[in-house]
Amino acid sequence: MTSIDNHSAAGSVRVLTAFRWLPEFARGLARDVRVRWALEEAGLTYQVNLIGAEEQASAGYRALQPFGQVPVYRDGELTLFESGAIAHHIALQSAALMPHDPAARARTLTWMFAALNSVEPAVLALVEIDLFAGDAAWAKERRPAVLAKVERRFAELSAQLADREYLLDRFTVADILMASVLRFVRHTELVAAQPVLHAYLERCNARPAASKAVADHVAVFAN
Amino acid sequence: MTSIDNHSAAGSVRVLTAFRWLPEFARGLARDVRVRWALEEAGLTYQVNLIGAEEQASAGYRALQPFGQVPVYRDGELTLFESGAIAHHIALQSAALMPHDPAARARTLTWMFAALNSVEPAVLALVEIDLFAGDAAWAKERRPAVLAKVERRFAELSAQLADREYLLDRFTVADILMASVLRFVRHTELVAAQPVLHAYLERCNARPAASKAVADHVAVFAN
Repeated sequence: MTSIDNHSAAGSVRVLTAFRWLPEFARGLARDVRVRWALEEAGLTYQVNLIGAEEQASAGYRALQPFGQVPVYRDGELTLFESGAIAHHIALQSAALMPHDPAARARTLTWMFAALNSVEPAVLALVEIDLFAGDAAWAKERRPAVLAKVERRFAELSAQLADREYLLDRFTVADILMASVLRFVRHTELVAAQPVLHAYLERCNARPAASKAVADHVAVFAN
Repeated sequence: MTSIDNHSAAGSVRVLTAFRWLPEFARGLARDVRVRWALEEAGLTYQVNLIGAEEQASAGYRALQPFGQVPVYRDGELTLFESGAIAHHIALQSAALMPHDPAARARTLTWMFAALNSVEPAVLALVEIDLFAGDAAWAKERRPAVLAKVERRFAELSAQLADREYLLDRFTVADILMASVLRFVRHTELVAAQPVLHAYLERCNARPAASKAVADHVAVFAN
């Protein structure tokens, strides 16, 4: 594994695993980006361990990440996987990502799960058809229903965002997850078709921590 | 909404929303079951608000649950949705569901997200084909790849469970979510095909709180 010190602070014990290489269409979308974003918002320094397909399939990596996915996150003695859980762990360390009040924290986690369990599966079903199914007959037949589900979810999200800037009454880690999910359909006009949602995504993307996270993620592939 | 007092304790302020009616194939699988299970493990009393399609589509319900799904959970002044977030909120109130140590809590949340973000989407893609697609040509063409993904996830889970009784080193709320996800494919032999996973699901299902939750859920439909 290649280790890159992403910040100048020495002695950091936070290590994020990311892919050494990604095809063009996946750049900016891999799940290490949302964790980088959370770390930037929190002002926490971290190192990056870059892995390739060989490490990903290794028993050693599977011991850390049973599904062979990215990212894995190490914070001192603690090793976590699942971007939602990692983002939550980071958010607990920073008022920039989550209020301190237990009720507000529970509401924040509600929207984190909403992003990853109620919206992401619908969105990724469409991505799978559009980016991976090629000319398969099943994909052509299936796409309208999958698209309709995404449009419904986006309309529901728009209604939630109609009278507020962020999912909750302030920016939280849930917005990082939701914006990251919305980015998956950047090959479509689906977000643009919903003005409220479009403005929300622009608002999230305009945050300096968001750009920094993407820039650091894609800088890896320039080497 | 019909209110049912599920326990004899008076003055409970916990209210769970569930469906008044469900078709046979969905009984025992709706997401209120996992929350009922968590509440039973925690020994917390609760009331149930039963809703039908009309309430589900209402503006009032959408204000509580933007995607019109079940369950919604009210704990005093706090209203939550997303079964993962509700289960986490309940787990924070009971040592029976989660250790107190912050690192162990973060690991528990990792497995909660694993259940709902890494395993459930694959499982529900298969359920959608098997239970809802009928004789559609796309479903026939698509099923082998969807099935293969579920089998891969189940094999990965089996590897994780090979040397332990539960996902972590003790029973936690993450097992409630994972077992609930595994139940979705009760129409197949996929869990039975993995002896370790089969034993795990049996172990989870054998817990008195698990049976009580399902019994209370299905009792609704007897009326």
